[in-house]
Amino acid sequence: MPHPALELLLAHRSIRRFTEAPLPDEDVRSAVEAGQQASTSSNVQAYSLIRVRDRQRLERLVELTGGQTKVARCGGFFIVCGDTRRHRLLAERAGVPYATRLEGFLIAAIDATLFAQNLCVAFEGLGYGICYIGGLRNDLASVQKLMAFPRGVYPLFGLCVGVPAEDPDRRPRLESEAVLFEEHYPDDETVLAGIARYDERMLDYYAARGVEGSWSQRIESQFREPYRAALAEYYREQGAVLD
Amino acid sequence: MPHPALELLLAHRSIRRFTEAPLPDEDVRSAVEAGQQASTSSNVQAYSLIRVRDRQRLERLVELTGGQTKVARCGGFFIVCGDTRRHRLLAERAGVPYATRLEGFLIAAIDATLFAQNLCVAFEGLGYGICYIGGLRNDLASVQKLMAFPRGVYPLFGLCVGVPAEDPDRRPRLESEAVLFEEHYPDDETVLAGIARYDERMLDYYAARGVEGSWSQRIESQFREPYRAALAEYYREQGAVLD
Repeated sequence: MPHPALELLLAHRSIRRFTEAPLPDEDVRSAVEAGQQASTSSNVQAYSLIRVRDRQRLERLVELTGGQTKVARCGGFFIVCGDTRRHRLLAERAGVPYATRLEGFLIAAIDATLFAQNLCVAFEGLGYGICYIGGLRNDLASVQKLMAFPRGVYPLFGLCVGVPAEDPDRRPRLESEAVLFEEHYPDDETVLAGIARYDERMLDYYAARGVEGSWSQRIESQFREPYRAALAEYYREQGAVLD
Repeated sequence: MPHPALELLLAHRSIRRFTEAPLPDEDVRSAVEAGQQASTSSNVQAYSLIRVRDRQRLERLVELTGGQTKVARCGGFFIVCGDTRRHRLLAERAGVPYATRLEGFLIAAIDATLFAQNLCVAFEGLGYGICYIGGLRNDLASVQKLMAFPRGVYPLFGLCVGVPAEDPDRRPRLESEAVLFEEHYPDDETVLAGIARYDERMLDYYAARGVEGSWSQRIESQFREPYRAALAEYYREQGAVLD
């Protein structure tokens, strides 16, 4: 029999409405410790998590994430950061160079995301709902003014956690056959056929929610314009090298 | 009582020796479906997973990942890719622009990593061991010759999965207090004090394994030279914009 963890993973859906019940510190600590046990590249542990509780700061973060009121109305709001600051401080103290290229940024982004996903699974295991807030990247220059992250810290996304005040359906994903490939990435016809099957399956899901258009049409419009174009400039100012 | 998923997360350690028992397709499918249920930025599902079975190709991947024999000696070896190809094909078919900046690459890297971590938790829930293979990024130009990823596909890391043939201890992490912060990123003294406590705790762990130096010393030497310097060039050739 599969481990109950598989059922937990399969039951995931993002929660966008929470009760105001605060998230107890001991649950946060348990989830963080479970998050930290995720794999990390050569044990560099290139991540940090900031919990924001200040009401005014939360209200400003609502604005900066595009009016997502849940940021200020959940059990706990967090900012997940790729974190190379520890490494930089150690190099500085030892008087040795800290050299970085795209790899350094990518390790931080991957390490932080491995940690964050374990953290979310742990929170869900504790009975909470979660929602990643990619909208944190809408305007990182303004987030920076609010949060004053030191050099080497790269905020990646926000995270709302709390007791669900809604019970939405799971959103269907692409078939596993459209994601898992044998030996080689398939030809364009195969990829498009997998998308066509998904478009078909998603028709009912979108129709029931009054959403216009197919998944394909949504994707087409999503990438039509450059998005969050100031991102590289922000991360470079934080000390990332993206070359 | 916490969900058994928390125990599973806390029990994680990377496995570096596997039996030769192959990984059944039905277990891979279950794990992939659990992986896919992870959050994805605006449902773009920007990832793919390639299973490599061909012996010669696996032996070549052993060389390219720095002589990691486990790549060819595990139940199943996979390459996790950030994948913007579906989006590009849709835009092309619709005759609309596909615009991308660093955000497009970062979404793919984050989406793929969220998926991968759920995938790994699912495999561990099924009783397997896993090891991420960051060494896949050592020489992506040569991996590209072997795998012929089309434009828009960004290989990020490998993944060994299989029945463990070893039972290593968990590697301790930084204290949660050194990772979780309230309201603001702390000052340098606080960060360095957290590292000092970790160095202390890791002395025994390293000594028992004949590893020289402290965590701090390992980090100092790790980032002394630029690492995987060809990465940005490779991803740009695959169509990523990193600005």
